Amino acid sequence: MSNLFSSERSTSRRGFLRGSAALAIALPSAAEILSSCTESKASKVPEEHSTPEHAAAAPAPLTARAKADAMDAMHEKGVKAFPAKTRGKGNQLLQSRLQGGVKVYDLTCTEVDWEVEPGRTVKAWTYNEQLPGPQLRVREGDRVRVNVKNELSQSTAVHFHGLELPNNQDGVPFITQPPIKPGESFTYEFVVPNAGSHMYHSHHNAAFQCGMGLLGAFIVEPKDTRNEPKVDVDYVMILNDSMHGYTLNGKSFPATEPLVAKLGQTIRIRFMNEGMMIHPMHLHGMHMTVIAKDGWDQPAPWKCDTLNIAPGERWDVIVKATNPGTWAFHCHILPHAESEHGMLGMVTALVVQG
Amino acid sequence: MSNLFSSERSTSRRGFLRGSAALAIALPSAAEILSSCTESKASKVPEEHSTPEHAAAAPAPLTARAKADAMDAMHEKGVKAFPAKTRGKGNQLLQSRLQGGVKVYDLTCTEVDWEVEPGRTVKAWTYNEQLPGPQLRVREGDRVRVNVKNELSQSTAVHFHGLELPNNQDGVPFITQPPIKPGESFTYEFVVPNAGSHMYHSHHNAAFQCGMGLLGAFIVEPKDTRNEPKVDVDYVMILNDSMHGYTLNGKSFPATEPLVAKLGQTIRIRFMNEGMMIHPMHLHGMHMTVIAKDGWDQPAPWKCDTLNIAPGERWDVIVKATNPGTWAFHCHILPHAESEHGMLGMVTALVVQG
Amino acid sequence: MSNLFSSERSTSRRGFLRGSAALAIALPSAAEILSSCTESKASKVPEEHSTPEHAAAAPAPLTARAKADAMDAMHEKGVKAFPAKTRGKGNQLLQSRLQGGVKVYDLTCTEVDWEVEPGRTVKAWTYNEQLPGPQLRVREGDRVRVNVKNELSQSTAVHFHGLELPNNQDGVPFITQPPIKPGESFTYEFVVPNAGSHMYHSHHNAAFQCGMGLLGAFIVEPKDTRNEPKVDVDYVMILNDSMHGYTLNGKSFPATEPLVAKLGQTIRIRFMNEGMMIHPMHLHGMHMTVIAKDGWDQPAPWKCDTLNIAPGERWDVIVKATNPGTWAFHCHILPHAESEHGMLGMVTALVVQG
Repeated sequence: MSNLFSSERSTSRRGFLRGSAALAIALPSAAEILSSCTESKASKVPEEHSTPEHAAAAPAPLTARAKADAMDAMHEKGVKAFPAKTRGKGNQLLQSRLQGGVKVYDLTCTEVDWEVEPGRTVKAWTYNEQLPGPQLRVREGDRVRVNVKNELSQSTAVHFHGLELPNNQDGVPFITQPPIKPGESFTYEFVVPNAGSHMYHSHHNAAFQCGMGLLGAFIVEPKDTRNEPKVDVDYVMILNDSMHGYTLNGKSFPATEPLVAKLGQTIRIRFMNEGMMIHPMHLHGMHMTVIAKDGWDQPAPWKCDTLNIAPGERWDVIVKATNPGTWAFHCHILPHAESEHGMLGMVTALVVQG
Repeated sequence: MSNLFSSERSTSRRGFLRGSAALAIALPSAAEILSSCTESKASKVPEEHSTPEHAAAAPAPLTARAKADAMDAMHEKGVKAFPAKTRGKGNQLLQSRLQGGVKVYDLTCTEVDWEVEPGRTVKAWTYNEQLPGPQLRVREGDRVRVNVKNELSQSTAVHFHGLELPNNQDGVPFITQPPIKPGESFTYEFVVPNAGSHMYHSHHNAAFQCGMGLLGAFIVEPKDTRNEPKVDVDYVMILNDSMHGYTLNGKSFPATEPLVAKLGQTIRIRFMNEGMMIHPMHLHGMHMTVIAKDGWDQPAPWKCDTLNIAPGERWDVIVKATNPGTWAFHCHILPHAESEHGMLGMVTALVVQG
Repeated sequence: MSNLFSSERSTSRRGFLRGSAALAIALPSAAEILSSCTESKASKVPEEHSTPEHAAAAPAPLTARAKADAMDAMHEKGVKAFPAKTRGKGNQLLQSRLQGGVKVYDLTCTEVDWEVEPGRTVKAWTYNEQLPGPQLRVREGDRVRVNVKNELSQSTAVHFHGLELPNNQDGVPFITQPPIKPGESFTYEFVVPNAGSHMYHSHHNAAFQCGMGLLGAFIVEPKDTRNEPKVDVDYVMILNDSMHGYTLNGKSFPATEPLVAKLGQTIRIRFMNEGMMIHPMHLHGMHMTVIAKDGWDQPAPWKCDTLNIAPGERWDVIVKATNPGTWAFHCHILPHAESEHGMLGMVTALVVQG
């Protein structure tokens, strides 16, 4: 873990981010903002350390100060390492193949080594070697075929969580289909019946298999887009708290991905909880307007800065990027976000480029 | 536990269900649907196991396959055993005696042996030897008398959770009444002040006594029924996570009771959490429209497929049975619903008879 | 702990409360109501203990009865001790100093001994030796300066949770400012941008520092008060579940503070969760109308009697004091509120003076 916060890594991270096409908006700016933030002077200059009342008890305070400095250094290194480079990126948009009017997707379940954060690599069960699995994005009314190939040691099945499919496409072994045995394949095919932010994941030995990573986002755009909010950034954030630790889109801070927007832009965030615990996500600096629950429009959107997301739930929110700067964005169950060694797990940032 | 999944039991279960008057709609159909589901072929035929790339490493995969088969067999037996026969059924409607215009109910608190699932019998503290206790169902404005007799080893008291009663009927020892000592009785009497899905339960040493089973549903139909949804099935689902394990209406999967409706019917589900943990209940295949919280109408009903229910909360939802088939319906904190030995605990099914 | 429930303490408590200016409404009445409640006779007289069916097995029941009596006595003593006198009171309104049109507040972070309940004193990290820290109450558009002096052994920083401040006032070390080192000071200054029920707390090693007590309420009254509910009692209730145990405003039952209102009055409660767990707060006898989330008006207020509050969340509710009496008001995760030794932790009472 000693390399986790190294400045070398920080340097190579920037190079990595410059070359990455994953973010629509160039990330060097984000990194630069972050750097400038950690160096910036706040509005008031701190007083000298040796104020009279503290100078009196010099030796003990010095030791305390050394301890405080050591703790602060760990915090600083974590922040400076963000967003840290790691191997592998999940939730990448998967392009479909068109076959006779059907959008075809191929998903292969395999075990891979997954780098959750720099220096911490775990065994993960993935779709197409991604964690979260590739993002499937279709339109209401599309005919979709999903070919699932199981290369794992256990049987599995795919449940399209939130889609109101015909029963035999629901993915629950022995209730709607036989399990997909190791080495075998299974094909799901359906007309997409309802819009919204949905998920696909294992529904067989699922406490284990979802914990190990067999999950992904299934986004359905509505046929009638007149009521859709116009957004500049459309972001999926999948929460998990499994054997891989506390993660956002399969990564732990400082390897989580920042959200980036330009001042004045509109962001849609699609929260999805694939874990076993609630996670109240707190955004600094701006509020969120909640527009949908489990893919269904809320009848009256409402505002908050901390949104409690329970396992299996999806919540869509709109954020207006009105406040420039780099803003902490984290689970407010604090042990999911910080320890005395610094920020960890379910922490990312919203970067509003002024 | 070896008998838990036996086919004999499955057979006798069907007989049991045929003879049961507990479900308004004959359950053999549900069981038949379940059977047909587990035997049905999904839309695509799985590929042969011995595909070339897997045939290469024959011996190891065979072992993995054998392990996978063994796990799958456990899952299959659980599903096939559902709904498994157990002794005792809670939440049965209790008819009142009319005495001078007062609806009188008698509740006796006793310890019983309660079969949570086949082969697992626990000590339970019950009202009228039921877990949950008998369902009390009255109308707003009714005068109600509840005679409580305590045959337990501890004192107790009954709190009518959600009813806005006169203070001395609130059931909190030393604040509103003396405790009901072992062997003694106490009578509550009040005019029912507000409608909705409420509960009655112990409010004395309650972490223990509610955990042990001293709880039940108290449903109040409104005086003015013009705004009440017209429903074909009105179902109470009480969640618990106590010393009896994860239960729905006092039973664990596969002994949980399926909800059954005919295609096109409307179901009202009244969720009530009597446990110590949240339970986000996820319905497959159809969405839920949330119409009331703690017995109070939501000003703007909203839709979801996963509803987070916290301890002490009640949520009323409407489900339109539009999608035929047998649908998994479970807590989405996955360890509350499944292990490598199969589905467990807070799992049931909604059976929509096409 | 033997002194916890002593009647002496109860007596001195009443004297304490008579002399306290902390509650707008004189508390002796509340204590008197409580006393009268525990002595009041409920509507029906309990039957004699020696009913025939119990007389048969005399010796064993007597032992059980003795055990039940012992348990009941512990419960009774806890209730009679409420509200128990303890040293220290948090969440006291802090008056600002006006300097050139700026409202100035001084906050000093120190470690103190904090009496959570009679006989249980813990180390706490506090703002101005209060837990919760002093209540800051300002108006939207006010210019505010907060001088923070850190006399703790760790560095710290203050995040104004919910306020949409300029980035360099956001209080996140290494992202928006350097940490405030032990012995040093830092000044925040900003124009208050948005109304509502907010919080201020440590954002450095915060799982520890917030757990230890570095937190307080930051209430912002709106510029335009036309839509503000007119209330007689405006109450902040901060939930915590840290190393200090389950607390409401820094105290555990029976040392929690009752809410007191006269019949017909209107109460606003501002719930704030500074802990790591959810707490579904249940009010007996009356419902709550939810009007705001995280300081933002709910578009359509809704009613409940059990409100689930997640870490970081604030919920504002209105209670109409229509039902006279002393009403239990507690977290419905029952182990947070009761054990076999009596009520504990997150329990208080709403006293409606008839």
